[in-house]
Amino acid sequence: MKKDAKVIDCTLRDGGIMNNWDFSIESARKIYQAAVKANVEIIEIGYRVSKKIFNPENHGIWKFCDENDITNMIDGSKDNIDIAVMADIGRCYKEDFLPKKESSIDIFRLACYVEQIDEALEMSDHLNNLGYKTMFNIMAVSTHPIEIVSECLKKVHKSGASAVYLADTFGAFKPEDIKRLLEIYKINCPNLPLGYHGHNNTQLALANSIIALQMGVEYIDASLYGMGRGAGNCPLELLLPAIDAEKYDISYTVKVIQDEIEPLMDQFKWGYRIPYAITGILNRHPKSAIEIVQNQDNECYGNFYEKSLTAASK
Amino acid sequence: MKKDAKVIDCTLRDGGIMNNWDFSIESARKIYQAAVKANVEIIEIGYRVSKKIFNPENHGIWKFCDENDITNMIDGSKDNIDIAVMADIGRCYKEDFLPKKESSIDIFRLACYVEQIDEALEMSDHLNNLGYKTMFNIMAVSTHPIEIVSECLKKVHKSGASAVYLADTFGAFKPEDIKRLLEIYKINCPNLPLGYHGHNNTQLALANSIIALQMGVEYIDASLYGMGRGAGNCPLELLLPAIDAEKYDISYTVKVIQDEIEPLMDQFKWGYRIPYAITGILNRHPKSAIEIVQNQDNECYGNFYEKSLTAASK
Repeated sequence: MKKDAKVIDCTLRDGGIMNNWDFSIESARKIYQAAVKANVEIIEIGYRVSKKIFNPENHGIWKFCDENDITNMIDGSKDNIDIAVMADIGRCYKEDFLPKKESSIDIFRLACYVEQIDEALEMSDHLNNLGYKTMFNIMAVSTHPIEIVSECLKKVHKSGASAVYLADTFGAFKPEDIKRLLEIYKINCPNLPLGYHGHNNTQLALANSIIALQMGVEYIDASLYGMGRGAGNCPLELLLPAIDAEKYDISYTVKVIQDEIEPLMDQFKWGYRIPYAITGILNRHPKSAIEIVQNQDNECYGNFYEKSLTAASK
Repeated sequence: MKKDAKVIDCTLRDGGIMNNWDFSIESARKIYQAAVKANVEIIEIGYRVSKKIFNPENHGIWKFCDENDITNMIDGSKDNIDIAVMADIGRCYKEDFLPKKESSIDIFRLACYVEQIDEALEMSDHLNNLGYKTMFNIMAVSTHPIEIVSECLKKVHKSGASAVYLADTFGAFKPEDIKRLLEIYKINCPNLPLGYHGHNNTQLALANSIIALQMGVEYIDASLYGMGRGAGNCPLELLLPAIDAEKYDISYTVKVIQDEIEPLMDQFKWGYRIPYAITGILNRHPKSAIEIVQNQDNECYGNFYEKSLTAASK
């Protein structure tokens, strides 16, 4: 297993999907300090989206990641950790990014679907020219034929990106899927570091992350208490000791989970639940499951399973 | 992977630890029917303990598994499924068991610690003579030297038992532990079917169960929604499709989870929680974690981690 892999704590970003990125500066500061104290290498603190597309009045500050908010969070000076921000292709413009020397951000992670790859490459070039590192998260690869994914990866390999991620968008990957897909990534991107972002619909996020590390990925995502969309992510507190119990120290991590994250669980309902399991088992987008859980819909799980099964076989 | 492995639904037994085995006949009937309809091979319906040791007034009926309660649950006639009951060595007497021909029970699973093995073997002989199959669950093997465990296994191998289980009592096993320990089981019990019972403290119960199946175990435990002691078991609804989505049908399973199991979760608090994760990560008995979760103790998780770490290194 790659013990020198870099862990990305994506609590504020992927966890933010659940609470509309509405972490106070104080709460974000504790989450940031938890990552620093645990010796996590990279923290992803939110999204950068265009304020022309999203009204700041309707969202928490970490959907935008303004520089002054970052400065407040880090108390003015950066610790020994890199700061990453995600940018969704189609939700930001080139004008939304300052030159690196005016920013605390080190890395932009570009999330795109296969069909947005050319637009993502153009944005990556722009951000590299501004002085940032870029990484690619290509979403929903499990729904495309291998040839299409391969073509997409070859383009990323030729770009100036620092890494390309395999993301289990539907939380549907089994260990053998990780092995098969990462082999495709390796063939098409032989000189580019790989990353893995799991989802926990079938409780395999940690096991799949360990397998991805054994396959040689150099970047791996996790979040405090698994906070993230739907079933959530690989829990950071489990991943760190599984990688290296000497290098990482989770004693402060569990305290911050208790103080900042656990109180949000009842309200925002991420983590293992039957509707998420159903979409994961059947390799479907979690959207329909999230609707049931969040709206406390009385949909019968038996009916939901049958409906999802029918939709999956179409 | 052994697709012809037999799954044991232990919801009523291990899940019963959480609600003091207080499932009504109607609820138990639905759980039983869920197993039958999903094509699960074996259902474990509770414990058989001595009423001289435990007062029936203080516990639900499935701590005792009286024959008339079983008859009520199965509506008088048994479906195509075997019925198992667990007996803890030291909590029952030989007189607590009827001859097989007067019972609906097919299998007794004997749970014992390494130091109770001789007593367990004597009970196994007694039950075999009465006409039952027996299986052994040896608990907390991860806390003993290999030589002691091996000696214990050789004795079971010479008995009339139908299987011997590896049980992850502390929820601390990693995939490499499963491989290493099952090799020891195979060497010492070359002609005895093996089983695996996981716990989910570090969210590896499903992944470890899949690995155990790949290693050739023939019996594997799971429960509805993972209901079980502390962090709970491998969720049945995830295990079945992971083994064979054609053979097993979870459409009724998820309905029964929604109707009978999910409503118990808030009250009885099994499943992934930080104190359980901490004891799992540090290979400690979950007792101290269960106390914190069940008593809604305000113990700081950071302190609990430090205390458990110190205790673990002693």
